[in-house]
Amino acid sequence: MVSSEEILKRLTMFRTEMKNEGIDVFLLLSTDPHASEYVSDHYKTTEFVSGCTSDNVVLVIEQDCAKLWTDGRYFISAAQELKDTGIELMKSGQPGVPKPEDYLRGTLHSGMVLAFDGTCVNAEIGQRYRDIAKSCGAKVESSPEAIDQIWMTRPALPCSPIWVLKDEIAGKSCADKLADVRRALEEKGCGHLILSKLDDIMWLLNLRGDDVECNPVALSYLLVGPETADVFLQKEAVTAETAEYLKENRIKVHEYTEILDYLKDYHFEAPVLIDRGSSSDTMVRLLKDKGDLVNGENPTAMMKAVKNCTEIENIQKYYLLDSVAVCRFIYQIKTRDRSVRMTEMDAAAMIDSLRAEIPGFIGLSFPTIPAVGPNAAMAHYMPSAESAAEVGEEGFLLVDSGAHYLGATTDVTRTIALGELTEEMKRDFTLVAVSNLELLYTGFAKGTSGAQLDMIARAPLYRYGMDFNHGTGHGIGYILNVHEGPQRIGHASSAGSEIPMAPGMITSDEPGIYREGKYGIRTESIMLTVYDKKNEFGEFLKHEPLTFAPIDLDAIDTRYMERLDVEYLNDYHAK
Amino acid sequence: MVSSEEILKRLTMFRTEMKNEGIDVFLLLSTDPHASEYVSDHYKTTEFVSGCTSDNVVLVIEQDCAKLWTDGRYFISAAQELKDTGIELMKSGQPGVPKPEDYLRGTLHSGMVLAFDGTCVNAEIGQRYRDIAKSCGAKVESSPEAIDQIWMTRPALPCSPIWVLKDEIAGKSCADKLADVRRALEEKGCGHLILSKLDDIMWLLNLRGDDVECNPVALSYLLVGPETADVFLQKEAVTAETAEYLKENRIKVHEYTEILDYLKDYHFEAPVLIDRGSSSDTMVRLLKDKGDLVNGENPTAMMKAVKNCTEIENIQKYYLLDSVAVCRFIYQIKTRDRSVRMTEMDAAAMIDSLRAEIPGFIGLSFPTIPAVGPNAAMAHYMPSAESAAEVGEEGFLLVDSGAHYLGATTDVTRTIALGELTEEMKRDFTLVAVSNLELLYTGFAKGTSGAQLDMIARAPLYRYGMDFNHGTGHGIGYILNVHEGPQRIGHASSAGSEIPMAPGMITSDEPGIYREGKYGIRTESIMLTVYDKKNEFGEFLKHEPLTFAPIDLDAIDTRYMERLDVEYLNDYHAK
Repeated sequence: MVSSEEILKRLTMFRTEMKNEGIDVFLLLSTDPHASEYVSDHYKTTEFVSGCTSDNVVLVIEQDCAKLWTDGRYFISAAQELKDTGIELMKSGQPGVPKPEDYLRGTLHSGMVLAFDGTCVNAEIGQRYRDIAKSCGAKVESSPEAIDQIWMTRPALPCSPIWVLKDEIAGKSCADKLADVRRALEEKGCGHLILSKLDDIMWLLNLRGDDVECNPVALSYLLVGPETADVFLQKEAVTAETAEYLKENRIKVHEYTEILDYLKDYHFEAPVLIDRGSSSDTMVRLLKDKGDLVNGENPTAMMKAVKNCTEIENIQKYYLLDSVAVCRFIYQIKTRDRSVRMTEMDAAAMIDSLRAEIPGFIGLSFPTIPAVGPNAAMAHYMPSAESAAEVGEEGFLLVDSGAHYLGATTDVTRTIALGELTEEMKRDFTLVAVSNLELLYTGFAKGTSGAQLDMIARAPLYRYGMDFNHGTGHGIGYILNVHEGPQRIGHASSAGSEIPMAPGMITSDEPGIYREGKYGIRTESIMLTVYDKKNEFGEFLKHEPLTFAPIDLDAIDTRYMERLDVEYLNDYHAK
Repeated sequence: MVSSEEILKRLTMFRTEMKNEGIDVFLLLSTDPHASEYVSDHYKTTEFVSGCTSDNVVLVIEQDCAKLWTDGRYFISAAQELKDTGIELMKSGQPGVPKPEDYLRGTLHSGMVLAFDGTCVNAEIGQRYRDIAKSCGAKVESSPEAIDQIWMTRPALPCSPIWVLKDEIAGKSCADKLADVRRALEEKGCGHLILSKLDDIMWLLNLRGDDVECNPVALSYLLVGPETADVFLQKEAVTAETAEYLKENRIKVHEYTEILDYLKDYHFEAPVLIDRGSSSDTMVRLLKDKGDLVNGENPTAMMKAVKNCTEIENIQKYYLLDSVAVCRFIYQIKTRDRSVRMTEMDAAAMIDSLRAEIPGFIGLSFPTIPAVGPNAAMAHYMPSAESAAEVGEEGFLLVDSGAHYLGATTDVTRTIALGELTEEMKRDFTLVAVSNLELLYTGFAKGTSGAQLDMIARAPLYRYGMDFNHGTGHGIGYILNVHEGPQRIGHASSAGSEIPMAPGMITSDEPGIYREGKYGIRTESIMLTVYDKKNEFGEFLKHEPLTFAPIDLDAIDTRYMERLDVEYLNDYHAK
């Protein structure tokens, strides 16, 4: 953790820079030009300025104050990181906490200048802030260079070798995927599609990289036309094999940094399809000046979410192998030599090495989260060698982990009883298990959205006046990002939760209960959506588990389970 | 039921009229100028032309074909009514059935003329059809007179006396409500509000009428300004007392039919708030030509939905009295003299007369629906004296009924076992009860929408591969319309289901199972949303029952209930 003195120094430097440039309010977001959830170190500007390691950060800096918004996953860790920095933590979604937009509406006034880096803010958000500034009479400037003035040690762009995912593993060739995309473009009356989202580009071209920690993607842009495809990559990252593959597929390679210049000079004959939510403000504004622009849903998002048969087969195979590693880990924890001190870091190393033994292992899909006691109440806690707590003989060990294999990306959380548990712990653990199982086992009508399914998971907790402050489920990539859209099982207000579940989607099921200062419980399995049946009442879908790791019976109190829940648990364990 | 010969005759006349006017496609909707759910006989144009008595109808007439769309509540009855008329029934929402919009997109082409009555189509729908016509190169005409050319016996506008709801019953004076509305207008930066929705106007002015069957509303429009209020009523309907009351409240009375002329000449200084979804296409287009127009959410919708303390007290009192009538009815059915023949109509008369005995009874809130056997599978079946089936000694009697009292509008459905039941009947009845009880008893986080709650009710049926083809819950007026917005417990795709539940709302809880040709089951209770608690997990709301009528234990099979469900049922019956 960076010291608060260092953060205060950086803030002072940044404010001086703002003064020099005539900027009154600077808006920094934890985003990159590709609308990535996790960004490479080069783009971790909010972390550099504030010391806060959370994702999903909005940081507003003024001369006399600074405020940082983040979501429920990070309330506890962000509070620790921002201590004594003078930066106020704004807990998004909590009663009485204004949204950043509303805050700016009250702060900006005529003659003021609001600045942000337009290349790192998506066009939807950019437009929103432009509208707010306009309604307040303030000006907007895009200032990508401000941060460079104070960040002397800024890491270079990552540049890992790009490799080709063979057709027999991808299940569909790049040529066939491009044909699907072109058909979708034609249906929408568009000529070209511009993609900035790295996992969309990787999926479409059957390429993979390693430019974002744990996300096997390469920095890139893609322009798909009726007959052409232009990809923008760091040429240094293109291996001979990859260059040959791209040539065979008649995909022209350009230098990564040339995208904006290329678009500036490109003559589009028909409307361009570009998703404003995943393309930069600067790019969209550049296109706007050139003529027709269609803001449309990016067709690759849904194509990528619905896994093909080869993908599903491989996913099932690797999830089984991955689950075996988790079972072995749980067994090792349960039967550990209690005379030897074990820390959270040791536990993480243990499960990581079990996974690394699996043939086809590529790497972790996110840094393993091992958390005991109150640490687990921080939903995305990450221990360091110094801070790691001991895996003791009471309470819970929560482990959230996953990996990439040459045939799947996995994600699983199990909470393990380390010894004596209180009544309250058992009740909470049981209710989380009930929540997880009811979501997994309850079939539903075709057309049901993630927001509706969310209720299945929350109802068992609501009955006891409990809830959890994060989504219930996210999609998962195929040898790609562990968090993938567009579907989402979550509150009606969360993006993607309006999307109906579809057969072939794979989605997490991860309810939890967190008691600050005491403990945290989460049980996460991954589910495959499949077609169930059609009858006089309509068409029905259901979920099948992909994860097969036991739910710790030592922590179950059947008094909090209905007969059906016990059946579900037994059936799940039998499987 | 009008004969199919008569319908064929009317269609021929209408098509001749279309030809004379150069109209290729005529769109008739079952709507009135006030976006009413139920319309007065004067506006039942789709029923006159097609013979179909469903609400929510879209009828498209061309020279060589005619198609009628309606929703799941009416699939069975509409099919009967449209038999041999040549009008094709389009079951909205069923797989393979295009929406009317999509159908028109495929049908209209350059040079064609599409006509509808712009005074009876709301501005949102009107705009949608205009856009479709435009994209096909077709023209649009508003033709309010076409129907008059063939409907010689068209009923006059209803004109019942308008009465004043005293402040001690309304719980809030008209002056206070107007002040609230003016504050809301100011917050939105608007000068005037134009209301066309009858129940909004009645609620705001504390007036009631009787112009729509079972809906105590009067035909009216209202224009609220910063200091003025202009109401448009049929002056014949204004009693001396009502005239005096309006004068005291400084509300100027104009003739109902003069609204459009008045608006045409009115000079608005600030933006006008008008809800395009409940104002006519003709009205909004007239205003559009005059300057500023804001399409905003009508603030009275939410004010009306959240009942005040006086309203809630009266509602609780009258729901108890109403429930007693239902209990007496169930007892009379159960202990009836089986040697005397009883029809569905007799059963309806029985419950209606029990309600009429309650002091404060005003009238029914909708025509009582009594249905035995397969009739109950038609969710909104209505027997006639000739068609009424016998209340026999097997299967179910479903009764959906309610009334207006001087302190509440009620709505309740109970399904009563008449004698022997099959295993399947008992299972279905039990699952409907479980669905109803779980929705009533499951508390939820503040911010939860109706679409999310919907899942609580459907999950118990989904587990057995069943579902029902209608919403789970609707808001209910206070001595007003039995169906009231804006909240709705229903599929994520249904309007209003995105609105979070709020303390003070009253909403129905009415799951069902319908087996075509066999039987229908529905259990409907009304719930009051109340604040539950705040704790470390957030703020929670819950529901309290307003309806206290037993769920028939003769039809319950506890093998289909969880322990919790049995507790809920016993607790409900104890209450």
